[in-house]
Amino acid sequence: MDALKNRIVRDGRILKGDILKVDSFLNHQIDVAFLNEIGTAFKERFKDCEVTKIMTIEASGIAVACATSQFFNYCPVVFAKKGNAANMSDNAYHAPLHSYTRGADFVISVSRDYLSKDDKLLILDDFLANGEALKAMISVAQQAGCQIVGCGTVIEKAYQPGGGMIRSKGIRVESLARIKSMSVENGIEFCQ
Amino acid sequence: MDALKNRIVRDGRILKGDILKVDSFLNHQIDVAFLNEIGTAFKERFKDCEVTKIMTIEASGIAVACATSQFFNYCPVVFAKKGNAANMSDNAYHAPLHSYTRGADFVISVSRDYLSKDDKLLILDDFLANGEALKAMISVAQQAGCQIVGCGTVIEKAYQPGGGMIRSKGIRVESLARIKSMSVENGIEFCQ
Repeated sequence: MDALKNRIVRDGRILKGDILKVDSFLNHQIDVAFLNEIGTAFKERFKDCEVTKIMTIEASGIAVACATSQFFNYCPVVFAKKGNAANMSDNAYHAPLHSYTRGADFVISVSRDYLSKDDKLLILDDFLANGEALKAMISVAQQAGCQIVGCGTVIEKAYQPGGGMIRSKGIRVESLARIKSMSVENGIEFCQ
Repeated sequence: MDALKNRIVRDGRILKGDILKVDSFLNHQIDVAFLNEIGTAFKERFKDCEVTKIMTIEASGIAVACATSQFFNYCPVVFAKKGNAANMSDNAYHAPLHSYTRGADFVISVSRDYLSKDDKLLILDDFLANGEALKAMISVAQQAGCQIVGCGTVIEKAYQPGGGMIRSKGIRVESLARIKSMSVENGIEFCQ
């Protein structure tokens, strides 16, 4: 998605520790009109699929998932919660999640009420690096017996193992911008 | 907003501990088309105001804020983060937040890059009860020198002190459904 690559180059900031900050438009401040372009791009990638529900994970995935829902007949979005809120009942599917960004271990939870074996599920997130978040969501979807149509991520660090790990399980992964390499000194190189 | 009240009555579940679960359409599973109606209702309430930015708080406010942005010329949305992620720099405004739902204390953070004294800010959230989240966001907005146009919440528990506390500071608060009383035995009564 060229508009996304251009936006990353223009507005993204590379920090030490392999951090790409795109918080001016994607995951802190949100450019809602641009998210519609992202949703359109996911529709283009998965246009051959019937999608009845989108799953994502709080917090940064929510805006991406809602924008994309519009292009899949406004299908419901369900977002996995991290940790266990007092009002999250035990009527939930759970999976462990290690966050490298936060340096912490979480449990993600999705209510059993909102996933079923009839769901044709598109799993979305903003970033794919080590694949921990997608792996946890895939576990939840499999516990619920959903049909996983595929996973979509806005930005994939293709030099990290997550994308390969998930694709090797036979799950389709579409990323709108795939980064081949990235450094403070040399900037970003995208995969072709 | 009658459609919202009807939806709460139809799909909401009242649990012990003064909990109203609306997670089938608002804050776990999300009905994206219905959020557009919510966004339209906020536009109607604040149509006399120029809004240049919307602030909300992760996670449940994000979908509401993005849906509403569409009706304010796709103005940027910025969401306050809870806790301190490793990639959240110290270049941020902070405010304390006690969550009654989670029984925990947080610090919320918004990057200084995304709030300024030129912003005419609409502050949105899904629920208003004790007003802790709005109070924290108002503090952040005031630190940044923003002009606060007002606060909008989807559901206000009007029998709890938050709404009154914030209105008493001279800040406009518009809630799309205001609950006068609620109990497992007697259901929900809305304010007129």
